[in-house]
Amino acid sequence: MFESFKPINRFLMGPGPANVHPKVLEALSKPTLGHLDPQFLQLMEELKNLLRYVFKTKNENTFVISGPGSLGMEASLVNMIEPDDKIIVCVGGYFSNRMAQIAEKFGANVIVVKEEWGRAIEPQKLEDALKENSDTKFVAFVHAETSTGALSDAKTLSKIAHDYNSLVITDAVTSLGAVDLYVDEWNLDVVYSCSQKGLACVAGMSPVTFSDAAIHHIKNRKTKIKSWFNDFNFLEPYWFGENKRAYHHTAPANQFYALHEALSLIKDEGIENSWERHKRNSNKLIERLKNELHLEPIVPIEERIPHLLAIKVPDGIDEAKVRKELLEKFNLEIGVGLGELAGKVWRIGLMGYNSNERMVDYLIKSLKEVISK
Amino acid sequence: MFESFKPINRFLMGPGPANVHPKVLEALSKPTLGHLDPQFLQLMEELKNLLRYVFKTKNENTFVISGPGSLGMEASLVNMIEPDDKIIVCVGGYFSNRMAQIAEKFGANVIVVKEEWGRAIEPQKLEDALKENSDTKFVAFVHAETSTGALSDAKTLSKIAHDYNSLVITDAVTSLGAVDLYVDEWNLDVVYSCSQKGLACVAGMSPVTFSDAAIHHIKNRKTKIKSWFNDFNFLEPYWFGENKRAYHHTAPANQFYALHEALSLIKDEGIENSWERHKRNSNKLIERLKNELHLEPIVPIEERIPHLLAIKVPDGIDEAKVRKELLEKFNLEIGVGLGELAGKVWRIGLMGYNSNERMVDYLIKSLKEVISK
Repeated sequence: MFESFKPINRFLMGPGPANVHPKVLEALSKPTLGHLDPQFLQLMEELKNLLRYVFKTKNENTFVISGPGSLGMEASLVNMIEPDDKIIVCVGGYFSNRMAQIAEKFGANVIVVKEEWGRAIEPQKLEDALKENSDTKFVAFVHAETSTGALSDAKTLSKIAHDYNSLVITDAVTSLGAVDLYVDEWNLDVVYSCSQKGLACVAGMSPVTFSDAAIHHIKNRKTKIKSWFNDFNFLEPYWFGENKRAYHHTAPANQFYALHEALSLIKDEGIENSWERHKRNSNKLIERLKNELHLEPIVPIEERIPHLLAIKVPDGIDEAKVRKELLEKFNLEIGVGLGELAGKVWRIGLMGYNSNERMVDYLIKSLKEVISK
Repeated sequence: MFESFKPINRFLMGPGPANVHPKVLEALSKPTLGHLDPQFLQLMEELKNLLRYVFKTKNENTFVISGPGSLGMEASLVNMIEPDDKIIVCVGGYFSNRMAQIAEKFGANVIVVKEEWGRAIEPQKLEDALKENSDTKFVAFVHAETSTGALSDAKTLSKIAHDYNSLVITDAVTSLGAVDLYVDEWNLDVVYSCSQKGLACVAGMSPVTFSDAAIHHIKNRKTKIKSWFNDFNFLEPYWFGENKRAYHHTAPANQFYALHEALSLIKDEGIENSWERHKRNSNKLIERLKNELHLEPIVPIEERIPHLLAIKVPDGIDEAKVRKELLEKFNLEIGVGLGELAGKVWRIGLMGYNSNERMVDYLIKSLKEVISK
């Protein structure tokens, strides 16, 4: 007989996945249901409502893409973009750069508004670009840039975009569930996220929401959507078919149980309380990193993602060695720098189930032992 | 406090998902690992080897698409097809028709070889089409057509395709793990499958394998691949990066644990033994359906998928009522007809963990009670 895989129980304090709530892991292993089972269809209804709750939206078209956040990014862009459409992508990190890459894949005319890595997008830069490009159809940006720790002002960026008649596509992968996000109030047209960060669920699902304006746009495209799996016209009867659901794909039922449990836990806590908790614990962490270890985030205080910090690696410290020792001696994972920040920062996340004082204590204690050696 | 979702423990004897092996459900709920954790990278290595075992291939490029089989279908086609490429799709059911639809999405010149629903693809028809279309680049077909219960002769179809210098794209969604499949021996260039049928795992993953010829083709394309998430050029360094894995997406770690367990169970049994078990139990089921209930598959005996039967609904029987009663009174799910066979057949699966005599007994007993009323 073979040996089953026995994953080490790590403390996951990188950019995600974060540790999964035990009740979510429990939900994951319940008996599978068929994707047309009446009980499963009921679960899908509840999922849509729970997602509307965490997204702060009344959008009817709120559902789950059955794949990771990166697939949600692709799904969001492919449904909106037609060849030669002009899209402004605000790029100040790895993931916003990926948005630009994907938009190009689908034949868009991509205008990049560049921002320094580690800074929020400067709204004036977006406005300048829109003035120069009056035929812009979409503005895309990342709300919380996972690669740099910078939180952009989604509300202001969205207002500017709409002032110039653009639709807004927002990456909320690292923001959903962990920091203030108001899809309707901020008028965000297409928003996608993931399951494994602020929602304290396992990876592999991408919650998405489309405004009525976004749907109107999709329904009035002149060209066909360049994907079958992500084509909203096929996803719509699957998630929203009135009397009868149309078959699309076999839903990952157990993953959906887990997401349902994770979202229910957030609703139980209250989404505003979850945001508040993330801020409170992160503030403690930042304070202690500074006072006890002289470590500081690279992002200015008013532009920081509370729960995901890019911490400057001090001169003379071997950043990879620190991560390795944290992992091997303390079962503690923190994140590596990506792209322009590779080798320059550690990324420390305090997300979802992990946003608590116990984890702050453990991280500080472990880091002290490794760095002071 | 909210109430957690409590799925009914159904007997899943439709076209999939099938019931999941208890050890696989157990694996699913183990602690999450980060996608760059050395232990997780080791798991990915083992997954690739286990998949090579069940696919009967030495293909280096054997891995998992992090989404359902339908995404695997899209990934397989989008990597191969360039605009105006000629592809022959053998269509004798719902899923082969979907292959044609997706190929069209990517701008292919699609030639359809039509077959009757419920019959294996007639090899001569493929050869005739290839003679008429000497510029054909790809031949695509479904090995085991889930919508009709017909098993095509993949070996012969592949030989003909290669005789005319075409690459072969094969849907093995319902065949992998449950019926003879020899990727290398049969010279299948691109093969995709799913996790929730013959592998007795949860839904949401798509095992794929690419021959060297397929990879050579991808590397020598003239146009860019029209997807970011499924682009092999980005998946390659993620799954096969030599010294260092390149980040692509956050892997659904817990799903991968489950797949690893499911594949290990098959290896433990022996893949040939698994095929044999599926045939043995299905033969018993067919015999008893005929003798005790006068029910027969629509597919001629030599063209049948052993483990997935499309059973003709007898005249005068309300097919939907039977399914409803089986579900409500016996917690037993069987499948509905799709497309041309809607309302005309039930689809009964005896797959993976479910392929055993106990399930045959339970199905026969339940069907008797419902139909004889």
